[in-house]
Amino acid sequence: MKEIFEYIEQHHDAYLEELFTFLRCKSISTRDEGVKECAELLAGIMEKSKIKASIYPTDRHPIVYGERIEDETLPTMLVYGHYDVQPPEPLGEWESEPFEPTIRDGKIFCRGVSDDKSQLFTHIKAAQAWAEVKGRLPVNIKYLFEGEEEIGSPDLLPFVESHKELLKCDVCFYSDSHYHESGRPQINLGVKGLCYVEITLREAETDLHSMMATCIQNPAWRMVKLLNTMRDAESNITIDGFYDDVRPLNQLEIDAVSKIPSDNEVLKKQYGVDHFIKGRKSDNFYYNLIFEPTCNIAGISSGFTGNGSKTVLPREAVVKIDMRLVPGQTPDKIYETLRRHLDNHGFEDAQLKHYGMVTPSRTPVDHPYVEVAAQALREGFHEEPVIFPGIGGVAPDFVFTGHLGVPSIVIPYAAADQKNHAPNESMVLDGFFKGIRTSAALPYYLAKKTQA
Amino acid sequence: MKEIFEYIEQHHDAYLEELFTFLRCKSISTRDEGVKECAELLAGIMEKSKIKASIYPTDRHPIVYGERIEDETLPTMLVYGHYDVQPPEPLGEWESEPFEPTIRDGKIFCRGVSDDKSQLFTHIKAAQAWAEVKGRLPVNIKYLFEGEEEIGSPDLLPFVESHKELLKCDVCFYSDSHYHESGRPQINLGVKGLCYVEITLREAETDLHSMMATCIQNPAWRMVKLLNTMRDAESNITIDGFYDDVRPLNQLEIDAVSKIPSDNEVLKKQYGVDHFIKGRKSDNFYYNLIFEPTCNIAGISSGFTGNGSKTVLPREAVVKIDMRLVPGQTPDKIYETLRRHLDNHGFEDAQLKHYGMVTPSRTPVDHPYVEVAAQALREGFHEEPVIFPGIGGVAPDFVFTGHLGVPSIVIPYAAADQKNHAPNESMVLDGFFKGIRTSAALPYYLAKKTQA
Repeated sequence: MKEIFEYIEQHHDAYLEELFTFLRCKSISTRDEGVKECAELLAGIMEKSKIKASIYPTDRHPIVYGERIEDETLPTMLVYGHYDVQPPEPLGEWESEPFEPTIRDGKIFCRGVSDDKSQLFTHIKAAQAWAEVKGRLPVNIKYLFEGEEEIGSPDLLPFVESHKELLKCDVCFYSDSHYHESGRPQINLGVKGLCYVEITLREAETDLHSMMATCIQNPAWRMVKLLNTMRDAESNITIDGFYDDVRPLNQLEIDAVSKIPSDNEVLKKQYGVDHFIKGRKSDNFYYNLIFEPTCNIAGISSGFTGNGSKTVLPREAVVKIDMRLVPGQTPDKIYETLRRHLDNHGFEDAQLKHYGMVTPSRTPVDHPYVEVAAQALREGFHEEPVIFPGIGGVAPDFVFTGHLGVPSIVIPYAAADQKNHAPNESMVLDGFFKGIRTSAALPYYLAKKTQA
Repeated sequence: MKEIFEYIEQHHDAYLEELFTFLRCKSISTRDEGVKECAELLAGIMEKSKIKASIYPTDRHPIVYGERIEDETLPTMLVYGHYDVQPPEPLGEWESEPFEPTIRDGKIFCRGVSDDKSQLFTHIKAAQAWAEVKGRLPVNIKYLFEGEEEIGSPDLLPFVESHKELLKCDVCFYSDSHYHESGRPQINLGVKGLCYVEITLREAETDLHSMMATCIQNPAWRMVKLLNTMRDAESNITIDGFYDDVRPLNQLEIDAVSKIPSDNEVLKKQYGVDHFIKGRKSDNFYYNLIFEPTCNIAGISSGFTGNGSKTVLPREAVVKIDMRLVPGQTPDKIYETLRRHLDNHGFEDAQLKHYGMVTPSRTPVDHPYVEVAAQALREGFHEEPVIFPGIGGVAPDFVFTGHLGVPSIVIPYAAADQKNHAPNESMVLDGFFKGIRTSAALPYYLAKKTQA
């Protein structure tokens, strides 16, 4: 590894220059701006980095696939990433041009720099370093970079399902999100699922004079009654059968969470609240964040919501709810469970529709390739990684664990203050260069583990 | 009365011509458009109608006061009305110009024609008819026309309080709103009060990632819990102490309501619903509408309320509630009752603010002047009036009953399909001319009652 790390060290300036070209290329998937051009640029970067690259069109934005197959008998790692970015708005809050990478205070500021362009870029440069220094990699490596992550990855699963042979691999590694607040590197082994629903109650054909409130049912009041059946004051979910399929925790997961550095006082300050929900099973912030499913009111609206006062009896009430699911639960079944719950509580007339449906995913804490990632991070960061058996967020991990049937291990290189999706998104330079080292160490330890 | 009715009959065309000038004069109080000019025009119309008129400026829009004092020993009636109108928007839905009075299908179409210009106009023309035919009225008459009704009459009470001697009278009559759906004339003897509040629950300083939902309280969920303490499924209000001050109904009121023609099937169709609230004390629509106070969610809003989906843990939830009060209740006390209720149910942190505060008002069904109004209506409409002991709406009646200490009796001349506040507002010609007759009969029967 020594020569490879030296090679990386010598190319820091070249990496930044190449990365900046990639960052300047807008690829805003939500409004179809520059995505195709960015895919072509990315494929070119991969080719120059000695990776065979192809562009696969989808119904929306292309997938950039790449590979270096050294030897069919070697283990194969898949690297996932996404080259699309969030829109830069609100523009006025950026301290430098959103699409002109700028270095300040040891960070690169640019839209998409941490989410996810510089993170996937580390894995390209890692392979190139191996190829330049050693002439080959100790494993096979495949790349799956999509341009639709910011719009919910609608074409990822169809692509994976129809290219299972192409994508055949032993493990999926990827770098996205951020490492631990303490600065220690981090491994994420799971994500939550999602069942996002909208419930509508309607009463009259139009808004009515509010004097009718003693005669005509107000759908906002009925919505209060409906919602009240779904959750108790401690935020336990009371949808009948909601927890039925939750897989019980194992001790390794519980132990891993108990080892995550955590200070409730610091966390409260960080989130701008003066208390966390009282009366939960655990006082541990991460226990609740990672292991507990959610039923969150993301939005509710009925009647007059402007400034000042207006008396009206609203014709309808609409609530949007995101339920983040944990292993064992599936979005389809949760959707049916909710429908049945509403029917059984007198809300047969509630209109229910769903938006996002994502299956939860978790890779076992004791999977042998978790140790591969840990070894690579120790080499890259010179620190012991924090193991997260899961995170609170949602991602299309189940595509890898469920449909490709491989462990999915996330190794984030951005710092906790990365501000992804917000103005002044940044990537810390230290994390970027340590990331390239870590990405380069992964093939080494993966090969070593397989030989052992 | 015969000569007076003949005089009125002969002047139909002249009345319309004069009314149309009044209607063409915009007086949109919400945006301060033409109100002062309209006050001057109205004072001129009154002067030409042999009423002594003065304009009293207020902090916002002027009050037009008028009087004919025939003899200090005669009874004095006060006529209230408002010459301001609602904005005409949406303009595209009008079938003729909103401020160009147009006759179609036996109706005058114009913004403000029924609410309230042509209705107050009848009382001016009635006095003029008496003055022209008899040289004098059989009673004294005072007029109080405000230009702020559509913005909640903010200067009416201060004006009345500071001009009690000027406004001294025995009874207040006015014409606004509409008569019964059946076409029968109607007498309204009361209005509800109003306590309009906005409740805000806030948790974090900003919207948060919804994965925090297992750790950080969602103010929308707390709002559900808060609202759930305030009302049961049958729309009974469960704010502790809410009903404490409600004055018990008397038999006359109950009898009056039971005589109001009412067909639930027709009413359901009219309001576009397929059922009324089940489980209420009475099945009678008007019983509930008139006698029961309300606690209505006029608006609720939290988090993401646009189209589609977005996962967010909202920083705050806001609800707007209008409580329509019945005699015995006062808005100040109800506001305090609600504050105490919230404090006692764990919502000390809820921010509470109030907008409209109106005291309810009711004139007794057996007040002798109610029969005066009934006699005038029989004379004007040749039909038996329907007596409403109250209505579901809110109006500044308490200014007359509470602060001037006189009965307040409303005699509407518009038809039920008047569409006030909406495009294509109209006044039925038949109601307008019968209204002038009725307004002319009022002084006659008031004088007769007093002599008796």
